[in-house]
Amino acid sequence: MQKSPADTVPADTSGDIMPDWLPALLGGERAALARAITAVENETDEARVVLHGIRGRLGRALVVGFTGAPGAGKSTLVSAYVAELRQRSLTVGVVAVDPSSPLTGGAILGDRIRMTRHSGDPGVFVRSLASRGHLGGLSRTAARVIDVFDAAGRDVVVVETVGTGQSEVEIAEIADVRVVVNAPGLGDDVQAIKAGILEIADILVVNKADLPFAERAARQLAAMAARKNGQAIPVLQTSATAGKGVADLADTIAAIGRRKRPDPRARTRRLLQNLALDRLRKGLAALPDAELDGLADAVLAGDLDIDTALHRLIALLRP
Amino acid sequence: MQKSPADTVPADTSGDIMPDWLPALLGGERAALARAITAVENETDEARVVLHGIRGRLGRALVVGFTGAPGAGKSTLVSAYVAELRQRSLTVGVVAVDPSSPLTGGAILGDRIRMTRHSGDPGVFVRSLASRGHLGGLSRTAARVIDVFDAAGRDVVVVETVGTGQSEVEIAEIADVRVVVNAPGLGDDVQAIKAGILEIADILVVNKADLPFAERAARQLAAMAARKNGQAIPVLQTSATAGKGVADLADTIAAIGRRKRPDPRARTRRLLQNLALDRLRKGLAALPDAELDGLADAVLAGDLDIDTALHRLIALLRP
Repeated sequence: MQKSPADTVPADTSGDIMPDWLPALLGGERAALARAITAVENETDEARVVLHGIRGRLGRALVVGFTGAPGAGKSTLVSAYVAELRQRSLTVGVVAVDPSSPLTGGAILGDRIRMTRHSGDPGVFVRSLASRGHLGGLSRTAARVIDVFDAAGRDVVVVETVGTGQSEVEIAEIADVRVVVNAPGLGDDVQAIKAGILEIADILVVNKADLPFAERAARQLAAMAARKNGQAIPVLQTSATAGKGVADLADTIAAIGRRKRPDPRARTRRLLQNLALDRLRKGLAALPDAELDGLADAVLAGDLDIDTALHRLIALLRP
Repeated sequence: MQKSPADTVPADTSGDIMPDWLPALLGGERAALARAITAVENETDEARVVLHGIRGRLGRALVVGFTGAPGAGKSTLVSAYVAELRQRSLTVGVVAVDPSSPLTGGAILGDRIRMTRHSGDPGVFVRSLASRGHLGGLSRTAARVIDVFDAAGRDVVVVETVGTGQSEVEIAEIADVRVVVNAPGLGDDVQAIKAGILEIADILVVNKADLPFAERAARQLAAMAARKNGQAIPVLQTSATAGKGVADLADTIAAIGRRKRPDPRARTRRLLQNLALDRLRKGLAALPDAELDGLADAVLAGDLDIDTALHRLIALLRP
């Protein structure tokens, strides 16, 4: 990661006709960025022009995913992390996939540090994505907005998801570096980290580290992470409201980013695999009862072995 | 559910040659049951004869799945539930899918009530299934052992799984009635119930109800369950070691069993859907890098839209 060369507009080498605002997008201009994101979010005709225009210009931005249980102080931590990046003169794009996120000023009175503190800073661009009740749609849109930020020269793209559903885990999984945020005592409310989220973590954070039992939560997370992955995952303690531990977090993210590298190809692979599995899962659930009953009856009657039944079941899903 | 007519051997109407011990299996004889389960577990040639011989004889046994976090006292609760069923003169088969389960005398010193208390009772037959490191294999084997118990006239088949992985959730999902067991304070150890498990629950149990905060845990579970399913799921409190609440649990299971009915066809449908999704998930993860990179690159270059890429990706999974 280095300072964005926002004043250097890459030459158009695509040979295609580009609308006049596309160089402005690639130059990182705010109005063009807003327009491009709106286009890809709404899948307008202009979206195709945008996606075409940004091709070949990806791979500079480090994409950092933040997810975790509600109540872990994730949004406040993201805001503090963004402030730290700005201190380091890095430009930031934020994709917030959380309807209750205070990032967009939506909710939760009393948060002392809110994303609105960055609202006057052109180096920070926040876009909140509304859930459309369509799982694949949301991670697809998030991936495209990430790419637009990347092409527009943002040094870091932060993706914030609430982390309680499969959809949110899949979106966070797209990121180059994934941070899972927890807080002491949340487990008591049956809101603890789910195993599926833990498995995608590159960094585990115990936020609200000023609360009792933070050390214990950190030890437990470290034990779980070591057990699950066979290798050590960093477990950091932060207190986002007090700004404690945030510089360490930024350093750790940057170090992992240097090792893993921004990788739009790997991000796109994961997106495609997640979308495909989602489509197949829905397809299996939506198969006609008659087909499923027929296969089940044939298996029960001994007329069909299970492998043949599976073969036929999967064949029914063909596009 | 009614008392097993263990002395009534159904006539063979299949027209096939049956080994002489198959009538003994259908009559519920213990040695034949052990032999049949071993056959289906090891997928020997005899397994085909067994599965053939039991066809058309399924649907009498109520299959009850128990799953939940380690430490919830699930095995002790299962043992107490089995004792309650025996009090009611019902015969039981137990399929234990938990390598650390004390049901088979494997572990955990100090458990006061263990399955071994049923070891002299011909009305209880326990079979522990070892994980073979093959997810689909385990739920397939569990389903077949369930069917053998059913055909052999067991009134109730209890399936116990540890409930921390996708595999275990899928096995519990096969059951007609699914019980999810939790205990107060487990959340503190980041071991709380996962959302995926909660979604399959017909009954939620807070075991160890003599511990502090049991009421609170029950209230929280009730709130989560109501929120997730749009309808009320019974939340019961038990203390398995003291035998408290176990009769209530048996009554509630029986009531739900009368409503949902033992349904081997529905169990087989769920088995097939789970196995198919598992196969597709593994297929997606195992696709050659070159294929995935090619699709990702084409999407990034704007040569392929995502829907077409998904179509091709899914086509690569063709069996």
